Amino acid sequence: MKKKNSSFELKKKINILDGVDFSVAHCGFKKNGKDDVVLFKLRERSKIFGFFTKSQFPGEPIKWNKSIKRFGYVSAILVNSGNANVFTGSAGRKSIQEIVKEISKLMKIKSNEIYIASTGVIGEYFDHKKIISILPKLVNNLSSSPKNWKRAANAIRTTDTFPKVESENFNIGKQKVIISGIAKGSGMIAPNMATMLGFIFTNVICNYTFQRKELKKIVEKTFNSITVDSDTSTSDMVLFVNVKSKNQIIIKKEEYLSQYIPKLENVSKKLAIKIVKDGEGAKKFVIVNVVDANNEKTAKLIAFSIANSPLVKTAIAGGDCNWGRLIMAMGKSKTKLDEKKISISINNNKLITKGEISKKVNLKKLNEYFKKNEIEINISLGVGKAAWTVWTCDFTKEYIKINADYRS
Amino acid sequence: MKKKNSSFELKKKINILDGVDFSVAHCGFKKNGKDDVVLFKLRERSKIFGFFTKSQFPGEPIKWNKSIKRFGYVSAILVNSGNANVFTGSAGRKSIQEIVKEISKLMKIKSNEIYIASTGVIGEYFDHKKIISILPKLVNNLSSSPKNWKRAANAIRTTDTFPKVESENFNIGKQKVIISGIAKGSGMIAPNMATMLGFIFTNVICNYTFQRKELKKIVEKTFNSITVDSDTSTSDMVLFVNVKSKNQIIIKKEEYLSQYIPKLENVSKKLAIKIVKDGEGAKKFVIVNVVDANNEKTAKLIAFSIANSPLVKTAIAGGDCNWGRLIMAMGKSKTKLDEKKISISINNNKLITKGEISKKVNLKKLNEYFKKNEIEINISLGVGKAAWTVWTCDFTKEYIKINADYRS
Repeated sequence: MKKKNSSFELKKKINILDGVDFSVAHCGFKKNGKDDVVLFKLRERSKIFGFFTKSQFPGEPIKWNKSIKRFGYVSAILVNSGNANVFTGSAGRKSIQEIVKEISKLMKIKSNEIYIASTGVIGEYFDHKKIISILPKLVNNLSSSPKNWKRAANAIRTTDTFPKVESENFNIGKQKVIISGIAKGSGMIAPNMATMLGFIFTNVICNYTFQRKELKKIVEKTFNSITVDSDTSTSDMVLFVNVKSKNQIIIKKEEYLSQYIPKLENVSKKLAIKIVKDGEGAKKFVIVNVVDANNEKTAKLIAFSIANSPLVKTAIAGGDCNWGRLIMAMGKSKTKLDEKKISISINNNKLITKGEISKKVNLKKLNEYFKKNEIEINISLGVGKAAWTVWTCDFTKEYIKINADYRS
Repeated sequence: MKKKNSSFELKKKINILDGVDFSVAHCGFKKNGKDDVVLFKLRERSKIFGFFTKSQFPGEPIKWNKSIKRFGYVSAILVNSGNANVFTGSAGRKSIQEIVKEISKLMKIKSNEIYIASTGVIGEYFDHKKIISILPKLVNNLSSSPKNWKRAANAIRTTDTFPKVESENFNIGKQKVIISGIAKGSGMIAPNMATMLGFIFTNVICNYTFQRKELKKIVEKTFNSITVDSDTSTSDMVLFVNVKSKNQIIIKKEEYLSQYIPKLENVSKKLAIKIVKDGEGAKKFVIVNVVDANNEKTAKLIAFSIANSPLVKTAIAGGDCNWGRLIMAMGKSKTKLDEKKISISINNNKLITKGEISKKVNLKKLNEYFKKNEIEINISLGVGKAAWTVWTCDFTKEYIKINADYRS
């Protein structure tokens, strides 16, 4: 599954977005000279919308970004992999200040328009000098070439097995809209914004307050609806940037809602799903749909209770339609459910209808289906009209191997 | 680790408890003629206290037991392994009725004094005829021999690798108190009472209402403070029985609280810890102590957030003191924490002191410690005086193997 995606990703067409330049280098956090730092530069300062981890111990970059969020503008984004700068105490806070000061000086931009993102090991000393010494080179090499987009997606990887890029273009009226984004993430993924990083750029410009509300809904339905291992990172963030340039587009509210938002949700969803498909050790992609719930909150809770259950995920890894574990996982969620109203269908087979096992169910066929690379589970709670979908992966021996040996 | 426990368990002395008899047989749920059904008979009806799973989809035995709980007495307990009788619809409900009716007739006891416990696969047709046909044999073979205790502990096993028995005797004044119990559990363990079953018997008799409150506290601190995989079973239950007999003891409130309760908590804790030590695939036993919290609820939440984290548990499996994952796991718990007040010590090494990494910390020694079979993690939240301990195990490739191949 992964190999296919990996080569697919490398061939993907990137729509060049005027107004944003990239630069990528190796500064020393990763071994073997691999790229580990990316600089994004907006030619003109642009509006930015940030969504950050809700961890009680957010990384230093998260704290910094939150402190400048209220200004609403971005001129540069610096991202490094290999060290998360989390729980690094006062030294870690000072590192951010030093980096921001140097970028501000070199690029002649305001400190409160410089965003920082880091991903990697938690609690290790963060040597900011590695970044500072590479900054002049990064600034010199800025370019908007599609090659740089791909190098950037590669440089922000940690345990990811492939780079994650999405790019779309379409017309609103006669105007060409471009949405391009990159993301990373593979383990410690249960975003409650995970170490998930996402950077999405568009040439659409519009009203601040109104846009934030719509973006929040998109984050909830996409990046916040995936899980690899139920472990929420200290460093998660998604940044949306309305890139100012000569190709910028100002659209009306109706066009924004009816045409732009569905496309942006789609790009976000595709990036989020790539993270799950690249989940540590994952061999299978799993879609959990919960429908007919009283409200979205309950539907989401039940979907996550299934998607996070080690016993459900190991059954899927084993290609075993052990649906009793779906029952267990729903049952443990702390919400009222009525056994007599629950229906479960898998691959168009009605397994449970209103609390009773269907007599016609062909368990052999279901087990065959569970051996596939992509599995969809459909649960009806039978009490309302709300629905939610969560995307996840199976739980394999490779996950254990990757995470037991992460630092050796 | 397991082999040692297993042989230890078989040599363990059982204190014979007058008034309760056992009988064990093979009725057909398990393969290869293995014991899979146990009948406990109280010679005189005795007081019983039951604690049951809080799953929204409890098994049929749980529903039955809850329906008779208010009568407060037990004359017989029937336990089977190999099929959980959960989500079996109306057929599953009828099975219980048939079994209870037959036991009542054969043993001449009231239906509302007959408790049922089942553990095994969820959602499979429960063939109660297997049990009914073996009942006469079970009734004929009742005996109080220690051999039967051990056979009973074996018969209720599913993926458990060793039987779990605890027995203590001590004096209160000149009276000899006996507490003996058996338990099972290995996977689907995150009791919110897990498939954990526990049966504890004592010759101590005392006031109903008062005892219930104390027992509830014990269950919270012991059986409800363990986790193997964060998956809460549909069939968990612990039953405490005050066995009536010529050797029964009536003790005063002060003796009950100061002498009996600590011993009972100890037996419960030992049984609960055995379940974790026998966690599916577990190679290491882990103690998570959270101290200096504002209240017990927060301490417990943080301890469970660590004990349930796949990333913490795989790091432990790998013998890697990747303490950044402890930070992550605390951070994701949805409770307010102050980074600057957190201290972490492991094996008497102060790793973090009030939010800052200790400079003297010897990470090599900590990694060596993390290669041991038993690991204790000490977290201070630095804000209050409340504390909680949770017991868990590591997360290994064998867990995945056991649960991916459970039904094949």
